[in-house]
Amino acid sequence: MSERVIKIGLCGFGVVGQGVFNHVQAKAKALTDQLGAQLEITRIAVRDTKKARDFAVADGVVCDDPMSIAQDESLDVVCELMGGTTLALEVCSTALKSGKVVITANKALLCDYGPELLKAAKDGGGHLLFEASVAGGIPIIKAINEGLVINSFSSIYGILNGTCNYILTRMANEGLSYEEILKDAKDLGYAEADETLDVQGIDAAHKAVVLAYLAYGRWVPYKDLFVEGVTKVTQDDIAYAKENGYGIKLVAVIAKTRDAGKLYITVLPTLVPLKYVLGRVDGVFNAVSVRGDVVGETVYIGPGAGRDATASAVISDLVDAVKTLVCSSKNEKVPVFDPVPRCGCDMELAEPEEIESRYYLRLLVQDEPGVLAEVASRLAAYDVSLASVSQKEVAEDASQASLILTTHMTTEKAILDAIKNLEGYECVDAKPFMMPIGNFED
Amino acid sequence: MSERVIKIGLCGFGVVGQGVFNHVQAKAKALTDQLGAQLEITRIAVRDTKKARDFAVADGVVCDDPMSIAQDESLDVVCELMGGTTLALEVCSTALKSGKVVITANKALLCDYGPELLKAAKDGGGHLLFEASVAGGIPIIKAINEGLVINSFSSIYGILNGTCNYILTRMANEGLSYEEILKDAKDLGYAEADETLDVQGIDAAHKAVVLAYLAYGRWVPYKDLFVEGVTKVTQDDIAYAKENGYGIKLVAVIAKTRDAGKLYITVLPTLVPLKYVLGRVDGVFNAVSVRGDVVGETVYIGPGAGRDATASAVISDLVDAVKTLVCSSKNEKVPVFDPVPRCGCDMELAEPEEIESRYYLRLLVQDEPGVLAEVASRLAAYDVSLASVSQKEVAEDASQASLILTTHMTTEKAILDAIKNLEGYECVDAKPFMMPIGNFED
Repeated sequence: MSERVIKIGLCGFGVVGQGVFNHVQAKAKALTDQLGAQLEITRIAVRDTKKARDFAVADGVVCDDPMSIAQDESLDVVCELMGGTTLALEVCSTALKSGKVVITANKALLCDYGPELLKAAKDGGGHLLFEASVAGGIPIIKAINEGLVINSFSSIYGILNGTCNYILTRMANEGLSYEEILKDAKDLGYAEADETLDVQGIDAAHKAVVLAYLAYGRWVPYKDLFVEGVTKVTQDDIAYAKENGYGIKLVAVIAKTRDAGKLYITVLPTLVPLKYVLGRVDGVFNAVSVRGDVVGETVYIGPGAGRDATASAVISDLVDAVKTLVCSSKNEKVPVFDPVPRCGCDMELAEPEEIESRYYLRLLVQDEPGVLAEVASRLAAYDVSLASVSQKEVAEDASQASLILTTHMTTEKAILDAIKNLEGYECVDAKPFMMPIGNFED
Repeated sequence: MSERVIKIGLCGFGVVGQGVFNHVQAKAKALTDQLGAQLEITRIAVRDTKKARDFAVADGVVCDDPMSIAQDESLDVVCELMGGTTLALEVCSTALKSGKVVITANKALLCDYGPELLKAAKDGGGHLLFEASVAGGIPIIKAINEGLVINSFSSIYGILNGTCNYILTRMANEGLSYEEILKDAKDLGYAEADETLDVQGIDAAHKAVVLAYLAYGRWVPYKDLFVEGVTKVTQDDIAYAKENGYGIKLVAVIAKTRDAGKLYITVLPTLVPLKYVLGRVDGVFNAVSVRGDVVGETVYIGPGAGRDATASAVISDLVDAVKTLVCSSKNEKVPVFDPVPRCGCDMELAEPEEIESRYYLRLLVQDEPGVLAEVASRLAAYDVSLASVSQKEVAEDASQASLILTTHMTTEKAILDAIKNLEGYECVDAKPFMMPIGNFED
């Protein structure tokens, strides 16, 4: 095998970019030995060329114009590790249209512009690889796309945001409020200075959209997801979970409805039975459970973020790219394999009245006679029937009570309509808090 | 993309072979759409051509001579799903030497003849793929080989035999003896008529050898493994485990010693802390924990056996093969990628005095004064120091007692030498039973 040189450009040299650079350099010989090709990072675009960095880069490699890398005819592979969805889109599209392999970890970009990017790849003969975009170091995209290639999927459940899982785990272990743990998580670097994308569930939702595309071949617009973050979880909820054998996790559900087989995606704080493996995945770890019609359930657990875990995933794409490039002769274009053999592109989205679950509701109510009866009857009006009820005094204000209800199986529409109705009831003092009660056994 | 036809021969049409046939037929269109190539199973070798089968096969496809399939020039891919290591070796070697892709689920074959098979592949330009050989439907080989390609590994822990895990789980849940559960497992089809390969740990050891090759590039001879099955586990052990927060699992450890970095493989019933995810993987499920220097720990859980789970893995290899074949032009040989980028081929094996663990010991002793003191002093003579001691009367025979000891950190050599010494002590009535106490936290 003649030793080919694969030229790589990095757009973005922050935490992940430096991780990729570091590990590719450190294991250059092993990679060359395996691949019969040398991996050379010949260009790097940074935001500020004057900034000091952890890793020494040869002269002439660094620039501050990622577009010049996207357009560089000498490059085989471009890694987009800048983040954002404006310049990143331009960089990725340009590189794909010119037939390059583009590797990205940018789930927001994929969520918003997945179809455009894949079209650019198809038109230009490029490849789009994005293992690092979901669940960090866990090779979940490779598992779904290749390892489970013969499967159709009934559901994917994912703990996809390490920051949320870290906060929920510490809240459960330490009995402190969301706000207290968030502050500490920021101090320790487990949460960003602006935590919005993480704690509101937006980051997990981006990842869920990517998983849904892989499993079902359809890019679901973000607006069609039901997304709620972890900011409203309280110690009342955690106490209930502990007493009843649950863990609270921010769970992304990407699933087909049982009867009609329509697709839905929700990202919600969820009561997960502790006997189920996802209920015990704690701290910054991510986990994904995938149910295939051939294989059954497989579960993947690992670090969902961090410089090295993400670099590990980016480099797995890089090595796949090199294998493909080495396979192809110079004159012949390598065929682009559509990552989706599962022909679901025309899959319908489920309506809220088709999505079924049991639910947990926490209401702050006036501690007056008749309130519970009224709440129950308002729920019943939407066919929401109660499985359990518990009421506790609120310590600070004896005129209020925390009312925790769980329902039997009902629909998302019914529970949301019922909640809306309860918001209009003068004895309910704050917006009710709702979580699905996960049934992951089937 | 012109639609190429990839011709496939199946050697073996038992449970797994029929599973592969079924799913490839059932999803033929989706596969063709994705791959731009048609997958055609044109030949099948069976043991008895007259036997009735679950799936209809076209005329002229079935024969009873697998070697004729291995030699068939018209075939691109041969799936060896016969089992055994004699004819299977001949079939695989012949097909590989003629440049075919060979897919096998045969861990015994890989364990005994891995180097020969890889050499045949290299010499002949063939490819050897074996995703289904370890952990059934879990794409663990793809994960290690591709997803974690940039990682060096410090350890792999695996629950690799579903039958053993099923038996241990039911023993723990139902309080019955090994023999009782085994009998029932056979009746229910969870254990083979001849259970030896499974319950003695041999099957798990074969898989451990394959994983060790993938992670460290070295084929460790079976004789260099320390293997013990689950046949000697009793309700005494299970009671101890429950009281102390452990699960008993048959765990394969493929790891490097901390200081010298030497490789060792053990397959032993093991006390696994319940707070660690592997401690709670129950029933027929398999699980593998992989620690990489870049990514950290990732864990994979799923069905370790069964027609469909195994077929899922075989077909993932098949699709990979098709991608590679489609990539290569007719005239040009596809490069064979060595699955091991980790250059450990010259890695030394650890000696028993270099392997460290805490251990659990159960002894049947004469219930006489001084016995415990003598046992402790004999252990101390090998520098084995005790962490805990508990003694219980044996119900059937009050003159005997069950003595359960746990040790502080010591070496495999020390504990084995000490056990040998204890076997020579007239007050120890049966061969002591030993399990490592797993420390999976680092």
